[in-house]
Amino acid sequence: MKNYRYTIGVDFGGTYVKLALVRFEEEAGYKIEGYSFFPTKEYSREALIEQLVIRIIKLKAKSTFKNHHVRGIGIGVPGRVDFNRGMVFDLTNVPGWKNVCLREILEKKIKLPVYVDNDANLMALAESKFGAARGYKNCVCVTMGTGIGGGIILGGRIYRGKNFAAGEVGHISINENGPICACGSKGCAERFVGSRYILEEAIKRLKRGAKSSVEEKLHGRYSNLTLEMLSRAARKKDAFSIILWQEVGKHVGVLLASVVNLLNPEVIVIGGGVANAGNLLLDPIRKVVKERAFSVSSRELKIVSSKCKEKAGIIGGAALALTGR
Amino acid sequence: MKNYRYTIGVDFGGTYVKLALVRFEEEAGYKIEGYSFFPTKEYSREALIEQLVIRIIKLKAKSTFKNHHVRGIGIGVPGRVDFNRGMVFDLTNVPGWKNVCLREILEKKIKLPVYVDNDANLMALAESKFGAARGYKNCVCVTMGTGIGGGIILGGRIYRGKNFAAGEVGHISINENGPICACGSKGCAERFVGSRYILEEAIKRLKRGAKSSVEEKLHGRYSNLTLEMLSRAARKKDAFSIILWQEVGKHVGVLLASVVNLLNPEVIVIGGGVANAGNLLLDPIRKVVKERAFSVSSRELKIVSSKCKEKAGIIGGAALALTGR
Repeated sequence: MKNYRYTIGVDFGGTYVKLALVRFEEEAGYKIEGYSFFPTKEYSREALIEQLVIRIIKLKAKSTFKNHHVRGIGIGVPGRVDFNRGMVFDLTNVPGWKNVCLREILEKKIKLPVYVDNDANLMALAESKFGAARGYKNCVCVTMGTGIGGGIILGGRIYRGKNFAAGEVGHISINENGPICACGSKGCAERFVGSRYILEEAIKRLKRGAKSSVEEKLHGRYSNLTLEMLSRAARKKDAFSIILWQEVGKHVGVLLASVVNLLNPEVIVIGGGVANAGNLLLDPIRKVVKERAFSVSSRELKIVSSKCKEKAGIIGGAALALTGR
Repeated sequence: MKNYRYTIGVDFGGTYVKLALVRFEEEAGYKIEGYSFFPTKEYSREALIEQLVIRIIKLKAKSTFKNHHVRGIGIGVPGRVDFNRGMVFDLTNVPGWKNVCLREILEKKIKLPVYVDNDANLMALAESKFGAARGYKNCVCVTMGTGIGGGIILGGRIYRGKNFAAGEVGHISINENGPICACGSKGCAERFVGSRYILEEAIKRLKRGAKSSVEEKLHGRYSNLTLEMLSRAARKKDAFSIILWQEVGKHVGVLLASVVNLLNPEVIVIGGGVANAGNLLLDPIRKVVKERAFSVSSRELKIVSSKCKEKAGIIGGAALALTGR
């Protein structure tokens, strides 16, 4: 019988809580053997934890049935945590989660080791162990969505910093006099390339009279504009959309050139909804990083798309539970 | 007899090469037991290496005389190195040092382990082991002079990155549309707070008619202006100089807020000639970091002056030779 190891990964998102039993095998990577999800917003905190426990126990039973022992549970949450204590400080977009000792609560009910970490850290771990950064020791992962998050892997391990708050790539200021960011600082990268700001900027330009093929589908309802529309239009040579993606790529490139000069990583992995634009985004990023970062650091650097994609949270959680760090 | 350990630290600077025999003692820190220096520019590369060898052998003899074994030699150089091979790629301001296998050359002549690293890394190591960051695991050291250098200590060890090029704090862009930097990028922090640019900015303002007490000593010879004059004037309430230091501090604060959001270190140590301005510089830096970085990361953060100061290079070199990493 092969040497399988089982853990459960939980991706606690603002919209869905997704979880799965994951089988790890030396060399061959991982396999998702059971999968389950439920909507986050329909449950109070207590009810959500109850749901989670029920589903974890079910997944665990699945492995017991096959005579395999589940080693632990790794949970990624969209917010700040105390990793050592397994405590959630607060969650972005999920109310009622202030200072919740999630590890303690779950370990009492499930009798398995529970690890809780920030979701961006676990996505980085997933990419580093099984995704686009596999085989590299030092990598930075950037998740581009409404917010711009990040996780840093150094020497193959998550780098968390003193207060478990490291990796806030989106809140590196790329313009000290730039617009005010939700975090209180000015000119943070997120303020230029978070999905909301990209759409705002596009709409502003359209309202000012810029011409684009995306308008055909909007019928004047600008709020219906999506990043997907801008990507599709750019691929069909819509100049407006092409320029927009180039500008987004430039901002991200400036940001990453700074990260590269500071950390000299081997790989940068870019994921999240905004990154679905693919090479429309990656090409200008690569160009600007080459132009701006020290060549010694950029020459061998790889800037690639996420490989684990929407599974990164679950895989990262499961990977965390394997090693506990 | 106490458990002393001896190494030799070499601070290979653009102006002087300084070296010393350093005695380490558990708990009690270090003691410089022999010291020697010679001017860098008066020697060709070969002659400089010869000088270095002669003086290292002399220091070594000193320890042998006391019956102590020198464990190794650590050398900090102002430029890029391949740490693993002990090779100097090139040096800033010292011509003739392209791709020199300094370790190999010295080990053949001295028969002791030789370690070669970037000077900013060794200053960071010195502060971390014996200076202002002693007792902390994660720290970032910034050396502010003509250029803005940096060294990163993570988990008590120098973090070098893939190509030994990490730590380029001065080349984080604080304004993506800012003035062009010598490195080719735009708006790098160094471009605003390197000593040359601070003086240029001050002179520009004086020439435009700004009033300052520093003018009394210049007699119209603006090129005689020094940072020391600007510090002294600021301490005597010269508004022009106070504002200038506040602006420099603000730029550095913006830069460090980004570093703090990315790395969440415990301490930031600031050294180098520009840092001689002391609290004129540190107070605005602290204020801006508090305003701009995430409070979870800035709340417990210490921003302090270098403690090893001009000895940091030698101590860092000697410390590197102790552990070899």
